[in-house]
Amino acid sequence: MSSGDNLEPVRLPARDIPPPTTISDVARVALSEGALGPAPGWPPASDLDAWRRAIADSTALWETVAAATLAATPSSVETRAIGGVTCHVATPPGLDPGGPLYLFIHGGAFVFGGGPYAKAQAAMQADRLGVASVSVDYRMPPDHPFPAAPEDCFAVYQALIATHDPARIVIGGSSAGGNLAAALTLMIRDRGLPAPAGLVLLTPEVDLTESGDSFQTNALLDVTLKGSLHNCNALYAQGHDLTDPYLSPLHGDLHGFPPTLVQTGTRDILLSNSVLMHRKLRRAGVEADLHVWEAMPHGGFGPFGAGGAPENAEIDEEVRRFIARRVA
Amino acid sequence: MSSGDNLEPVRLPARDIPPPTTISDVARVALSEGALGPAPGWPPASDLDAWRRAIADSTALWETVAAATLAATPSSVETRAIGGVTCHVATPPGLDPGGPLYLFIHGGAFVFGGGPYAKAQAAMQADRLGVASVSVDYRMPPDHPFPAAPEDCFAVYQALIATHDPARIVIGGSSAGGNLAAALTLMIRDRGLPAPAGLVLLTPEVDLTESGDSFQTNALLDVTLKGSLHNCNALYAQGHDLTDPYLSPLHGDLHGFPPTLVQTGTRDILLSNSVLMHRKLRRAGVEADLHVWEAMPHGGFGPFGAGGAPENAEIDEEVRRFIARRVA
Repeated sequence: MSSGDNLEPVRLPARDIPPPTTISDVARVALSEGALGPAPGWPPASDLDAWRRAIADSTALWETVAAATLAATPSSVETRAIGGVTCHVATPPGLDPGGPLYLFIHGGAFVFGGGPYAKAQAAMQADRLGVASVSVDYRMPPDHPFPAAPEDCFAVYQALIATHDPARIVIGGSSAGGNLAAALTLMIRDRGLPAPAGLVLLTPEVDLTESGDSFQTNALLDVTLKGSLHNCNALYAQGHDLTDPYLSPLHGDLHGFPPTLVQTGTRDILLSNSVLMHRKLRRAGVEADLHVWEAMPHGGFGPFGAGGAPENAEIDEEVRRFIARRVA
Repeated sequence: MSSGDNLEPVRLPARDIPPPTTISDVARVALSEGALGPAPGWPPASDLDAWRRAIADSTALWETVAAATLAATPSSVETRAIGGVTCHVATPPGLDPGGPLYLFIHGGAFVFGGGPYAKAQAAMQADRLGVASVSVDYRMPPDHPFPAAPEDCFAVYQALIATHDPARIVIGGSSAGGNLAAALTLMIRDRGLPAPAGLVLLTPEVDLTESGDSFQTNALLDVTLKGSLHNCNALYAQGHDLTDPYLSPLHGDLHGFPPTLVQTGTRDILLSNSVLMHRKLRRAGVEADLHVWEAMPHGGFGPFGAGGAPENAEIDEEVRRFIARRVA
């Protein structure tokens, strides 16, 4: 029995689940290596010192990776304030800076990924998708909890549409960035701004209450995100009701959303977030497309989707096609 | 370790998985009741007497259900040979019999569902989708193994397009019927017939080798289809190579397929079949849409998707919209 009602659970025996043969060899190795890795332990939301240390460690790690990415990118990358918010803008060679824009909101559990990661993401999106990309270096906890992040994203969008046609802007984000991309889209609609041309939600964390089935069924099976994000969510929400649509867009009214691409994997702990969001968008009459990859954990195969699995490249290809179609 | 390589499995402890709170109450009760039900035991493919008994029992069960369905349907239902194959044709009241057609191929593990079930399905599809529906009562094992079933479907399609514009025909099927719908579409292309307007694959069993990840991850978790269909597949295939595309369309070249709708659920043991088929269709340049329902087992919530879960009705709504768009 569970949750106080009389409903029977499915009783599953202990099981070993090997990587399936239906994915690439690179992806199989990534699942195998992930299976051996430890589960991350996030500090409780109240331990701000521990959080500051964890964030500093993560940022230091990314300094190196970001430096290599930025040294290798053929795109031009600059950091500047847009709407008063730090942004990193990457423009692929030969592209008109006044052309289509991808407004990308990085992931990192609402806590990680600021600075070098956010900057590297601008270049990575521009290089992989062939579109000028604006990566928002939004404020984060512990110093700047909700609603600083979505308000920063809103300020950037508002400033961008003063000089860019919103019909040539696509908003996107991954994981916590998918949450913020959806929250931003809600704010845009609620505050009467013109909608962007499209929305890309990559393995989005759109329900901070973690109510979906996959938080049980894919627990531990997702080798990238091995447990609940409860502590991160609590640090971010700072006591706000987690069902507030700007915190958990799955709980919002999604009418008026632009065409939306939703991506996830069958082993993604956020699988339920993704499929529930897709269905709610469809019920609201939104042109929403769902793409689910076989056995893929949160964020693609390999740490942060790196490592060269062809499945990861296939996600880029779908996003590239979606953006091209939307801004055509 | 598994399958002879050095890849680590994910080691999952024993777990109780209750119905999630993110589905309807009707669906939650269906999952709970399903959790208590026994796993079906199918006879080995060699025990033809046992199979004949199992088929007779299933058909007898369906006589009653089908009679009630046919007594209640507002559609006109007639049984007649099309291309030499027994078919059941259901036309909703007021619809032109020369208008759009849904060529529906019933499920039942390639073994069950002939006769009364196939006839009831014609009425159910017509009533739920509002389109004239032709349900193929294709031949099945033990007397008529592969390729009798797809050849029967092909003969029906060939006969239908002599009098109906293929641009106004959508082909669809559920489970084993989804397999046959995809195999039929391959045959149509391979033999140079004009393609139908669209293809509907409901929780399709498109890989009889059962290679996908969900055959492990959703084993037992899928309360409707609790185990492998190996025995049924062997009875149907009768020694043919299971990777033959007409037996396992996932192994085929899918170029030239018409726009396709693929439906599944996160607890469907055929989840991997569905998402792999969707991805392969996309890679072949086909306009393919994927729809995945939260916590849904094979075939919808409740036995045979019956029981009134709103999620089941939502599948019908997506199929109805797809057909209307395709034959417009």
